[in-house]
Amino acid sequence: MLATDVHAQLAAILTPSSLLVTAEETRPYECDGLTLFRAQPAAVVLPETEAQVAAILKICHAARIPVVARGAGTSLSGGATPDPAGIVLSLAKFKRIVAVDALSRTAVVQPGVRNLAISEAAAQHGLYYAPDPSSQIACTIGGNVAENAGGVHCLKYGLTVHNVRRVRGVLVTGEIVEFGGDALDSAGYDLLALVNGSEGLLAVITEVTVKLTPKPQLAQVALAAFDDVEKSGAAVGAIIGAGIIPAGLEMMDQPATRAVEEFVHAGYPLDAAAVLLVESDGTPEEVAAEMAEIRRVLADAGATEIRVAKDEAQRLLFWSGRKNAFPAVGRLSPDYYCMDGTIPRKALPRVLRAIAKWSEEFGLPCANVFHAGDGNLHPLILFDANKPGESERTIAFGDRILALCIEVGGTVTGEHGVGMEKLDSMCVQFAPAELTRFHGIKEAFDAYRLLNPGKGVPTLHRCAEMGRMHVHHNALPHPDLPRF
Amino acid sequence: MLATDVHAQLAAILTPSSLLVTAEETRPYECDGLTLFRAQPAAVVLPETEAQVAAILKICHAARIPVVARGAGTSLSGGATPDPAGIVLSLAKFKRIVAVDALSRTAVVQPGVRNLAISEAAAQHGLYYAPDPSSQIACTIGGNVAENAGGVHCLKYGLTVHNVRRVRGVLVTGEIVEFGGDALDSAGYDLLALVNGSEGLLAVITEVTVKLTPKPQLAQVALAAFDDVEKSGAAVGAIIGAGIIPAGLEMMDQPATRAVEEFVHAGYPLDAAAVLLVESDGTPEEVAAEMAEIRRVLADAGATEIRVAKDEAQRLLFWSGRKNAFPAVGRLSPDYYCMDGTIPRKALPRVLRAIAKWSEEFGLPCANVFHAGDGNLHPLILFDANKPGESERTIAFGDRILALCIEVGGTVTGEHGVGMEKLDSMCVQFAPAELTRFHGIKEAFDAYRLLNPGKGVPTLHRCAEMGRMHVHHNALPHPDLPRF
Repeated sequence: MLATDVHAQLAAILTPSSLLVTAEETRPYECDGLTLFRAQPAAVVLPETEAQVAAILKICHAARIPVVARGAGTSLSGGATPDPAGIVLSLAKFKRIVAVDALSRTAVVQPGVRNLAISEAAAQHGLYYAPDPSSQIACTIGGNVAENAGGVHCLKYGLTVHNVRRVRGVLVTGEIVEFGGDALDSAGYDLLALVNGSEGLLAVITEVTVKLTPKPQLAQVALAAFDDVEKSGAAVGAIIGAGIIPAGLEMMDQPATRAVEEFVHAGYPLDAAAVLLVESDGTPEEVAAEMAEIRRVLADAGATEIRVAKDEAQRLLFWSGRKNAFPAVGRLSPDYYCMDGTIPRKALPRVLRAIAKWSEEFGLPCANVFHAGDGNLHPLILFDANKPGESERTIAFGDRILALCIEVGGTVTGEHGVGMEKLDSMCVQFAPAELTRFHGIKEAFDAYRLLNPGKGVPTLHRCAEMGRMHVHHNALPHPDLPRF
Repeated sequence: MLATDVHAQLAAILTPSSLLVTAEETRPYECDGLTLFRAQPAAVVLPETEAQVAAILKICHAARIPVVARGAGTSLSGGATPDPAGIVLSLAKFKRIVAVDALSRTAVVQPGVRNLAISEAAAQHGLYYAPDPSSQIACTIGGNVAENAGGVHCLKYGLTVHNVRRVRGVLVTGEIVEFGGDALDSAGYDLLALVNGSEGLLAVITEVTVKLTPKPQLAQVALAAFDDVEKSGAAVGAIIGAGIIPAGLEMMDQPATRAVEEFVHAGYPLDAAAVLLVESDGTPEEVAAEMAEIRRVLADAGATEIRVAKDEAQRLLFWSGRKNAFPAVGRLSPDYYCMDGTIPRKALPRVLRAIAKWSEEFGLPCANVFHAGDGNLHPLILFDANKPGESERTIAFGDRILALCIEVGGTVTGEHGVGMEKLDSMCVQFAPAELTRFHGIKEAFDAYRLLNPGKGVPTLHRCAEMGRMHVHHNALPHPDLPRF
């Protein structure tokens, strides 16, 4: 419930349909793509202008009310889960493509613009927006920036942070700020990189300038089958080691390909232990040369079958299988838990071996769908929440995978973010000295911790309670010097 | 002068030859490449191990002594100018290449390793380290990270931040930290990007893992002459607008090419108002196709002459002219002031016009040497410090160029950093809300502001005294919540 005076202040700047307060109205906002976490917010606001966003933040800041910004709500880590004492600030009405500049190869868009809509708007200039998360039909650029989203093509074209030039936003105090600019570099600390992946904890984004990429003249994809999962992992390393940077390099194991095949009929070989999809793009000459080299490396790595899509329709069909892997696996089991970790490529065989072993130990099937080229793993653990103990075993299995990701030199999130889901894993990955700096950065932007509270970075207290680390007293000296 | 107890503590952990305290010993450290600023430090320390670095920082932190980290001292913005009350911490002895991993295409190096030495070590694997500042023979990777160095090839291959995977360092408190990792993405705020370009204000770097790039099979460069400077600026936009990302895209105007020609005999046409160097690299097929397209665009843009280097020797000669442009211009005039600003490419003609006009107004010749492809300008203002008023006019001319860079949407530094040189320009570029966040970040890492004090970010007080902005009271609320 909103305090009466806060409600009155918000009502003074918003139309009635942009201020939702009843349980019926706020229900659709109670969770994001990670439905495990749910909370009913005190209110949902849907501003239409940056001035309204600034005014809302000033009101909430003065009243010390938490604010959770929300794009399309497709987060898989609880990044947009409401705070029960706070408001949800939806950017759904910020859906204008402000400008597409073909000469500078940039587009200026509002945060509620869908990822795919940017590429559609740029298509007339032969350009597109490269990062392509699987949810690209639905997810919005504001959320992409907040989570530093990746995608099938980020091995060659980079993550969101590599494709965003400028972010305009509002601080919790209501001040307007701009991070980055038209230039490649920026003076001062790199606030643009800092806001990318900051999960809504530092500012509310109101405008994004993205880099556009020329559409390649040609794209081709090869499908390679392996009779052994570890061999396919080694083949990934061999491709990169041969000096090739494919436009996409994806891996699925047999549980995943079987699920996909029943669902999409993509033409995947059902007897293979694992399948790789390797894409090459560029001019026809480049693609021909690179594809010959890819075939050679795959054959040397022991592929039992290599098939290059014979035309664009088959290429899209091969990819359609990969892009529908999650829903396909979802059909096999009452529930599944999508993990997201990243490891150095060379650790792929070892991690695959461990997952297979634990799958047996825990008695839980696991389908592996990997952005293999950049080491981003999405093991999908199949379980039935109605069977006693299966949820707990699933979480234990998942924790073990993430701990192994850290052990081999990787990280607990590839592209889905920490959100509410991975706070405990952060205690394992980061030392107190590092967590303390994270909190210091938060304090520089949002001293009362009102923006998306309880997400992204665990408190040292939480980590201490987990028993995996100790609270680090006086890590930061309390300055006796005056503030600036 | 070091306090006796501090001297004793440092002497206890360092060999006598690694602790310099006399004026004769510390004299070589009194300035970096920006000789305008000089100061004699209280001491210079040359540790050999990370444990020594941590111990030095703990001693200085406890005694509240400023610490200025120094690599090769090639900074052009005073980034390594000593603090007279502090010590200089030289990383000169950290010059070991720890590992080169051809499979993961990375190298682990200590901060005192020279930029070019990394490529030399990686050459046996057909790899190199892409960012190539003009000072690459001398400058070290630690300084490259601190300044987020660029170079001729950064248009295609990115700045230092895009080519660094992991940075290990020591906080001012003596705590060891690691930023980034083997994975493409990292959980939490992007501290890796934050430390890149942080100019030694956040941590002392002790180890860097860089990304290596496969050497292209072939590189070719085209030299294009223009009878009009603005036309050459427009040609730069046309090349990028045509979907080409050259491996290098450099511009020199007539004062620059004439100086170079006398010095290097690179074969530049002396009658051209401006010259572009456009490089293409890749497989022979790719280079042939791209070079044909480059020639077409250059011709359409009005080039009066287009010459492709006929062999590798001529290619290196063309580049040798560009790489020696600064010393060549230095021969023309008793003094020159090297500016460093970045603008959107489309603003090139406008900025070139303005510089030409101001050059006449101020009565000071200006030679323009640009990383044109990414809009990074290096106007070299020629002056004689012994002529009354010329230094002042030079600074006024330079300030005007930087103000125009900001006005057209650019930034006051491309790759040389802010250092001591550009603190005032930062007041113009950034709003109080942004500067306040910069200071907040500094406080999270170094609350007593001991690391490289007086560099990088101006105090709000300084900006207020300049009269260009107002001190922003209470920009950050003093939290009434407990700290973590």
